[in-house]
Amino acid sequence: MDVAAVTATAPDAPLEKTTIRRRETGPADVLIEIEFAGICHSDIHHARSEWGSAEYPVTPGHEIVGLVREVGSEVTRHSVGDRVGVGCLVGACHECSSCEAGQEQECENGAVATYGSPLPEGHPEGTVTQGGYSTHIVVEERMVVSIPDGLDPAAAAPLLCAGITMFSPLRQWNVGPGMSVAVIGMGGLGHVGVQLAVAMGAEVTVLSQTTSKRDDSLRFGAVEHYATAGDEGRETLRGLRGTFDVILNTVSANLPVDRFLATLKPRGALVGIGIPTEPMSVRAGSLAAGRKILTGSMIGGIPETQEMLEFCARHGVTAEIEMIAADKINEAYDRVVNSDVRYRFVIDAKTF
Amino acid sequence: MDVAAVTATAPDAPLEKTTIRRRETGPADVLIEIEFAGICHSDIHHARSEWGSAEYPVTPGHEIVGLVREVGSEVTRHSVGDRVGVGCLVGACHECSSCEAGQEQECENGAVATYGSPLPEGHPEGTVTQGGYSTHIVVEERMVVSIPDGLDPAAAAPLLCAGITMFSPLRQWNVGPGMSVAVIGMGGLGHVGVQLAVAMGAEVTVLSQTTSKRDDSLRFGAVEHYATAGDEGRETLRGLRGTFDVILNTVSANLPVDRFLATLKPRGALVGIGIPTEPMSVRAGSLAAGRKILTGSMIGGIPETQEMLEFCARHGVTAEIEMIAADKINEAYDRVVNSDVRYRFVIDAKTF
Repeated sequence: MDVAAVTATAPDAPLEKTTIRRRETGPADVLIEIEFAGICHSDIHHARSEWGSAEYPVTPGHEIVGLVREVGSEVTRHSVGDRVGVGCLVGACHECSSCEAGQEQECENGAVATYGSPLPEGHPEGTVTQGGYSTHIVVEERMVVSIPDGLDPAAAAPLLCAGITMFSPLRQWNVGPGMSVAVIGMGGLGHVGVQLAVAMGAEVTVLSQTTSKRDDSLRFGAVEHYATAGDEGRETLRGLRGTFDVILNTVSANLPVDRFLATLKPRGALVGIGIPTEPMSVRAGSLAAGRKILTGSMIGGIPETQEMLEFCARHGVTAEIEMIAADKINEAYDRVVNSDVRYRFVIDAKTF
Repeated sequence: MDVAAVTATAPDAPLEKTTIRRRETGPADVLIEIEFAGICHSDIHHARSEWGSAEYPVTPGHEIVGLVREVGSEVTRHSVGDRVGVGCLVGACHECSSCEAGQEQECENGAVATYGSPLPEGHPEGTVTQGGYSTHIVVEERMVVSIPDGLDPAAAAPLLCAGITMFSPLRQWNVGPGMSVAVIGMGGLGHVGVQLAVAMGAEVTVLSQTTSKRDDSLRFGAVEHYATAGDEGRETLRGLRGTFDVILNTVSANLPVDRFLATLKPRGALVGIGIPTEPMSVRAGSLAAGRKILTGSMIGGIPETQEMLEFCARHGVTAEIEMIAADKINEAYDRVVNSDVRYRFVIDAKTF
């Protein structure tokens, strides 16, 4: 089945409209007619070969919402007409201990990313997986989640990456009432993270370069929003010594980690979500004094993604989006790079 | 009360015999006649002003075992004739939330170290606290632990620092049967850590620069001892990918942290005990992939120190020591710096 798509063809070329091939719907697969596809900063890194050399052509997109149009003979979880979602992963072994624990993102035999993952030789879809900037996709049902009725389907798309990326570490570090949480960075990830942590009952503070998004932070339920850049920011961080139980760092640039560790309570955790390209510099003493924890997190598994969507529907958590047509993707990429979006672009799949 | 002691007088001068003053036994104090005082590498760092400028003269020693000779009118925990121990701390506020949680080492109003901590003006003992290289010491009873009958009193001295330093993170990270633990470095800390982790039921591996102490590692109950230096060591670490639940790093030199993080299982913890002077370099991706934890730990609180001593008595865990007389302290310092001791020096306090 050949379907319309928007594809990257080289690191420095604009994305362009094309046609890509989707495989036949196998016994365990569902065919999804895509309604909405979110734009994630990772799409840009991949399309531009900024995270290592990509194989072209590649269709990005791992925040996919659509309707089931066909199901394989063995499919039990989804039915024709259901609204479903696909996130960053379209395959896993389903047999290793990570998969059995519902942590497909850590599949010991290698999870299959929604785009750019190598396909076996002779695969009808080509040499690498092709993502969601497209009208249709075929995915094995176990990697497909259900979109609850209460969620706006377009705004739900970014939750499939940004939502689970923030939800999973908040759950892992047991965030709940009485806890103090900071979110570093108020972008696509941060603005969902603030809402999630607030909905979990935590007192949430936003730490950002500037105060330009302060009103938004408070609207999303944060109790404070501080600027942390420069000398003044350094003083602000000093004043926040020993404040937070958990900090989620969504920023991909290198931060002065020791200064942020100092704002944790004893045994508090600083969770890195953004992945800077350069190594971090951390003083051992910043960790030993008060037994601070420095850790990281990447997306989450399928069961937790489903749980996150239901949590969002229950608590009215959603991404704030700007809807665009397919012919605005290149412009949107530039705006994402310039942090000029509040807070996530979603492509209307009818325009592919 | 003037008592015999061995004191550091300058960063580069040998320690020398002298007399220091101990305060009168106050209502909440006990007077201890010291039997044994361990030598910890920290004593050397402090005496030589290697961790910032020390105030001289200062008597080191924070691994103290002795007999109670006098108790204040309000003392209830200890009686004359009891064998007791004093570790790294001789004071805390006993009112903050850390103290209430039995974590006096994190006292929010500042714990008082056994030596080198500032004393209030006009204090009879001088300007800073004076440690255990001495015949007697006066300590508030709440900072004094009981030495269980089953422990050899001389070998128990190092447990008051090395023992609790290893015990506390093993407990914090829930080490027990079925878990795989690595100890980096087989010195004063490491040789106790191996025994403790084995006694807790874990499978223990020693990671050391060389294999020179391999026989000792196996004698202490480790299942393996690997050399991790050089190219061969790098290959060894590669072969250990995803092996350990917890790694205790007792080494103060900077290690290739990313390589060791790779040997952790998902969600495993690398706990830094040694404090290198230079910052560590860590890739965010080494933490995010598998949600590895990088943290640290410093000694422990009084209740946990008591628990550790009882655990050691029950399980036959002890430090291996070389007993020396007071006039051999300077020689012992040089040997500690050269890692030429298996595994801890203890001074016979009758020789002060």
